[in-house]
Amino acid sequence: MISEEQLENTLEWLLWALHDDVAALPIEAGDLTVDDWAFVLEAIPSDDRYRLWEMLPDTDKGAILAAMRDDARNQLLGRIDQPEIVSIARNSTPEQVVEILDAVSEGVAQRIIRRLSPEDQDSITSAMAYDEEQLGRYLVREAYVVSGTATVGNLLVELKTQELPPYTDSFLVTDAAGRYLGQVDLNMLLGSPRGARLRDIADSLDEVLTTDMPLLEASNRVKNSGRSMLPVLDSGGQLLGRFSLRDALDVFQEHFEAQIMHLGQVADEDLFAPIAVSAGRRAIWLGINLLTAFMASAVIGIFEDVVAQVVALAVLMPIVASMGGITGSQTLTLTIRGLATGRLAPSNLGALGSKELSVALLNGLLWGAVVAVCAGLWFGNPQLSYIIAGSLLVNMLVASGAGIAIPVLLERNGIDPALAGSVILTTVTDVVGFMVFLGSAAVLLV
Amino acid sequence: MISEEQLENTLEWLLWALHDDVAALPIEAGDLTVDDWAFVLEAIPSDDRYRLWEMLPDTDKGAILAAMRDDARNQLLGRIDQPEIVSIARNSTPEQVVEILDAVSEGVAQRIIRRLSPEDQDSITSAMAYDEEQLGRYLVREAYVVSGTATVGNLLVELKTQELPPYTDSFLVTDAAGRYLGQVDLNMLLGSPRGARLRDIADSLDEVLTTDMPLLEASNRVKNSGRSMLPVLDSGGQLLGRFSLRDALDVFQEHFEAQIMHLGQVADEDLFAPIAVSAGRRAIWLGINLLTAFMASAVIGIFEDVVAQVVALAVLMPIVASMGGITGSQTLTLTIRGLATGRLAPSNLGALGSKELSVALLNGLLWGAVVAVCAGLWFGNPQLSYIIAGSLLVNMLVASGAGIAIPVLLERNGIDPALAGSVILTTVTDVVGFMVFLGSAAVLLV
Repeated sequence: MISEEQLENTLEWLLWALHDDVAALPIEAGDLTVDDWAFVLEAIPSDDRYRLWEMLPDTDKGAILAAMRDDARNQLLGRIDQPEIVSIARNSTPEQVVEILDAVSEGVAQRIIRRLSPEDQDSITSAMAYDEEQLGRYLVREAYVVSGTATVGNLLVELKTQELPPYTDSFLVTDAAGRYLGQVDLNMLLGSPRGARLRDIADSLDEVLTTDMPLLEASNRVKNSGRSMLPVLDSGGQLLGRFSLRDALDVFQEHFEAQIMHLGQVADEDLFAPIAVSAGRRAIWLGINLLTAFMASAVIGIFEDVVAQVVALAVLMPIVASMGGITGSQTLTLTIRGLATGRLAPSNLGALGSKELSVALLNGLLWGAVVAVCAGLWFGNPQLSYIIAGSLLVNMLVASGAGIAIPVLLERNGIDPALAGSVILTTVTDVVGFMVFLGSAAVLLV
Repeated sequence: MISEEQLENTLEWLLWALHDDVAALPIEAGDLTVDDWAFVLEAIPSDDRYRLWEMLPDTDKGAILAAMRDDARNQLLGRIDQPEIVSIARNSTPEQVVEILDAVSEGVAQRIIRRLSPEDQDSITSAMAYDEEQLGRYLVREAYVVSGTATVGNLLVELKTQELPPYTDSFLVTDAAGRYLGQVDLNMLLGSPRGARLRDIADSLDEVLTTDMPLLEASNRVKNSGRSMLPVLDSGGQLLGRFSLRDALDVFQEHFEAQIMHLGQVADEDLFAPIAVSAGRRAIWLGINLLTAFMASAVIGIFEDVVAQVVALAVLMPIVASMGGITGSQTLTLTIRGLATGRLAPSNLGALGSKELSVALLNGLLWGAVVAVCAGLWFGNPQLSYIIAGSLLVNMLVASGAGIAIPVLLERNGIDPALAGSVILTTVTDVVGFMVFLGSAAVLLV
């Protein structure tokens, strides 16, 4: 692990070396860990990425791939041929192989699995039976497990020489059939007589995770458990592995980064995805947005005659839409966070609604008055001032209601509100804003 | 700790009990931990919040306050009088007191500190000498520390009875003056002769944190260290405490949630902030947005005559602005994430720029053509079709350039790009969009 500044310098140097002086490469970059390499690969353009990849030591490639973000890994794997993937998989742990196989087609994955050791085949096949949101798929099997029939003395002797995996602050105890009995923490271990059997002192009341648990739930449980890691059992009570605070941290980071990207209408998380891939993915959002923009245009189209008569309406109409958009986005963001953290539930939805509507009412009155005065000074038409103030207020109230209703309805229908929420919201605030403003102008002004 | 579903039921029941049957309250809600209470307080409207608060056991109040998010805690503390804060502070750890004092004025904080034990006064004063982004301020002092002159045997005996704090997977060793010597992990401890002195076997090469480190950097270091916690030293090498993976997880969560809120133009993180507080904070963003909306209106105002002659321009102009807005927001989001994770540095900024411009070019050509055809079918004016296609392309190219330049410039000037980036970007895409579209129409169409 090197510091952030060193990493930045390394990046600069690598980008230069890849273009100008490739021979120097494997020699000077020896201090980087697997995580550092994953970081560097994500931070360079996709063509350079593959050239650098070819220079990396074969034995680290599986670990580096597993440490990369999904999207960057998938891009890179798309350029690696099957025999090389097989050879990487043979040098990797089953957990790393699962991450790698996610990126290839089902058929290719099966062919690769068949070339691995029978033991690895079993682990990988059972992991891949779980879906991508379930703990069983990403289970780390390196847990330090001890037998319930062993004594405290046996374990203490074993610990003299046995290297422990990181985050081991307690010992997981199983019976002869591999079923989980409980855990023994350091206090218990050192405070018990040497002759005591581990199965008798193991604490079975402690929390366990199960392989069918959603990743986020498992992460929350580890976070709140006060343990550095929790055991993971299958439905039959077999101890299959463990899930650590560090794993939980990775899950949270991925979750939050995905939400941030989704809120910005980006699906591709990879900074340097190939241009065609990136353009294709963004095109979908742009297309959806174009549809909604045409809906807004259609509303304006209805009132073409009014706009032609009073051009001030064309000048002012973006203000109504834009203030509604911001109001809605504020409520939407709060609601999405509330839903994601569980703080917002059916029982307090009404309370949030009345609070948000009151906030929108206060701000609608304030900014409606400001806009009315400004519009009055600009166009000298008091009726226009009343119309824009009223429309602004109505649109802001509708926006804040929609800012709650849209994410709640999306979530109830199993759609990520961060992904689709703001596009739908903008459609509502544009359509309502133009409709109310131009519609009331058509009635009152012409 | 209870499950998410139980917590949701508890919330529903509490909201009902607070309104209808308060007497049942303290009896039936006994299973909640300090974290659960913090969660519940954040999830109920601000008036109910204070009524519930008064029923909570006094001994837990400091811990509950410390477990709450900043904004909700500050709101609640605003309603608690000074004598009660003093009594809560007396029942709290120094770390909890620091979190509480952040919410009150400097003078009040000083008066409260003077009423505490001299030992706590010292810890709190030294913590508050650091600023809010520094590790020293939030240092957890509960580290399990052992003396370098003790032997392995001494420690093993002590561990039989001594309750260890959570996340203890190694033992921090200091000299007689409290200076940090290194850490002894479990393998070392059990593998060394009982007579060995801890100072001789302690590993001093392991990573340490310092009190002046930014919180996010400290969190990254713990995450990458492979340890459940790292020791924290002051500039003189004194061991002051520790920072655990769990602490790091909290820092990351707060960081990401703040970024998400900022991207949605919300500064207040509290779901149930009082209406006036919430309205005031949102008003700032709405006011800034209104200013930028007036700038867009001013641009349209310049071309009033053109719009009056060709009303189709008023109908179509939101499309140009909106497609530019989405394009810019996609690039902006990617850039902000790249900057925040360190993957984007001066050395690869150019590569990102050329990639993003290429992506915008492809999408600008695609959607420009689509819009031209649609506009043609609608208005039957080929010139108008050319103008909107060209304007769309130009605005999307400008938007993607601005989507990189704005966050980079903001960050260089010490401003959070998540907070201000999208408002500035929208101004650029609106102003440029209207200017190019209406301007070229003025030249070519009229």
